[in-house]
Amino acid sequence: MSIFTPVSESQLATWLKNYSVGGLIGLEPIASGIENTNYFVTTSQGRYVLTLFERLPAAELPFYLELMAHLARHGIPCPAPIADLADRYLSSLNGKPATLVTRLAGASVENPGVAECVELGALLARMHLAGRSYGGYLENPRGPKWWRRAADEVRPFLDPLRAAQLESELRFQAQHRFADLPRGAVHADLFRDNALFDNGRISGVFDFYFAGVDCFVYDLAVCVNDWCLVDPEGDRRLDEPKTLALLGAYRAIRPLESTEGEAWPVMLRAAALRFWLSRLHDKHLPRPGELVKVHDPEHFCEILALRGARGAPAPWAA
Amino acid sequence: MSIFTPVSESQLATWLKNYSVGGLIGLEPIASGIENTNYFVTTSQGRYVLTLFERLPAAELPFYLELMAHLARHGIPCPAPIADLADRYLSSLNGKPATLVTRLAGASVENPGVAECVELGALLARMHLAGRSYGGYLENPRGPKWWRRAADEVRPFLDPLRAAQLESELRFQAQHRFADLPRGAVHADLFRDNALFDNGRISGVFDFYFAGVDCFVYDLAVCVNDWCLVDPEGDRRLDEPKTLALLGAYRAIRPLESTEGEAWPVMLRAAALRFWLSRLHDKHLPRPGELVKVHDPEHFCEILALRGARGAPAPWAA
Repeated sequence: MSIFTPVSESQLATWLKNYSVGGLIGLEPIASGIENTNYFVTTSQGRYVLTLFERLPAAELPFYLELMAHLARHGIPCPAPIADLADRYLSSLNGKPATLVTRLAGASVENPGVAECVELGALLARMHLAGRSYGGYLENPRGPKWWRRAADEVRPFLDPLRAAQLESELRFQAQHRFADLPRGAVHADLFRDNALFDNGRISGVFDFYFAGVDCFVYDLAVCVNDWCLVDPEGDRRLDEPKTLALLGAYRAIRPLESTEGEAWPVMLRAAALRFWLSRLHDKHLPRPGELVKVHDPEHFCEILALRGARGAPAPWAA
Repeated sequence: MSIFTPVSESQLATWLKNYSVGGLIGLEPIASGIENTNYFVTTSQGRYVLTLFERLPAAELPFYLELMAHLARHGIPCPAPIADLADRYLSSLNGKPATLVTRLAGASVENPGVAECVELGALLARMHLAGRSYGGYLENPRGPKWWRRAADEVRPFLDPLRAAQLESELRFQAQHRFADLPRGAVHADLFRDNALFDNGRISGVFDFYFAGVDCFVYDLAVCVNDWCLVDPEGDRRLDEPKTLALLGAYRAIRPLESTEGEAWPVMLRAAALRFWLSRLHDKHLPRPGELVKVHDPEHFCEILALRGARGAPAPWAA
């Protein structure tokens, strides 16, 4: 349950008078999501998602909303923020920063196959290319600086083995920085549940509220670690056909540089570390009043261990 | 037939590499339209319209494209221009300025009833409100200055009665200028064939290439003269239920000022004059190589005469 700030139909109908989207027809709370309050909104004009921001720093919101607007007008199927009559993407509703974005068609795919990985890889490459002309800047809010802060916070809750693994990985990552990798705006959280498919085609990517500027190949590693497992509920090794399909489709649109190939094994570990840490944090330091399902941190601890094994060069480096 | 500049699949596939819309799947010429070359374009990402501008002044194109982009991001269902990798809406294809815009769903309605007039009136009001924050400026290119220029050009082709009617109307309009009417970006050509309906709802308005800054009530008069006739093929008087429905839906969203009510009968005549003149011009001074069907100028001459009759105050003035 993630309705932190309830919105009534009459409150919304009044608020919508500041927009050009017609009259309110329906309002439906969205139960998933852990950061914001979300509603599906139907008006005489179309279908939208209303988001009330509960804890994201207000100063970061323009980066996310302008990025979505930028990508949408380049043809990337992501939620497009709707500007109000004062020409702003962000206004206020029931005391919270709020935005209205277009609702995308389609449904998430729990067990993507090679075909879905091809779709995702191609879209990710197009998104990276489209994002290069985006002028906004926000350092990846879940990057190395945050890793160290989060590690300090969760360390007291870890058993000695896990604590040692965490220290070891932080040290490894600190020794492997790649300052010259191609960078730009990245989604940084493009898990299966943040993508929609319609008739076999990828029809949307959403939830840009962990986006930031980072290496493109890091974004790719986040995706591969979630989309390309042999079995997400069991065998967390990378499935080679799915991995090659995703990377191949990406490279057909945005060829990777040799430095990106060299960084690849480290990036897979970095992407695993980031989500291991956030899941540890969510588990051991839940926010007050939080009722969301906690994802098991061990899932990413195991992925990290598997990616850390020797002999994991970039599959395209051969 | 309006393909002035043919585009092959391989030419388009190459051009689309500058965009983030995926690979080309299909290309289909659009036969209607008299100003530009248009194609329906299907890619792995979606459905678009490709437009090559054949004769619009290059300096005016940004006004139209930025206006469409502005309205689209306010939720108005109009074609949204797609930005290329250099972040431009306008580039070049086969030597012509070219743009790619989203394709809207739905179909035009030849004989709109009260329900469709309600839909149009509401959308027009929302469009006018959304357009108030648009920063671009282009004087209505078919405004009073153009009337006089066009009248000079078509006068030699008119019989004495029509010539006298034209002079009389130009004089009448010159005596009735309304400098203080609410103004903004207006479509100025929102005929039935420039709107789409889907399941009874208005799903799109397009062809913004006669747009400009003018009185809102002039835009309303252009619509009423086309959408609200008793019989477009015969009785060109205004159908009162349809007229009141369109105006009522508009006014529910953007109330009209008393000055707009006073100007209304003059605006209906101005809107008829503009299209009478352009049809006369298309008939008597066709552009070289033009093969399009010429619309009968007499249609608007008759509308002008009917609107010019005494006793035609604003229907909401009572």
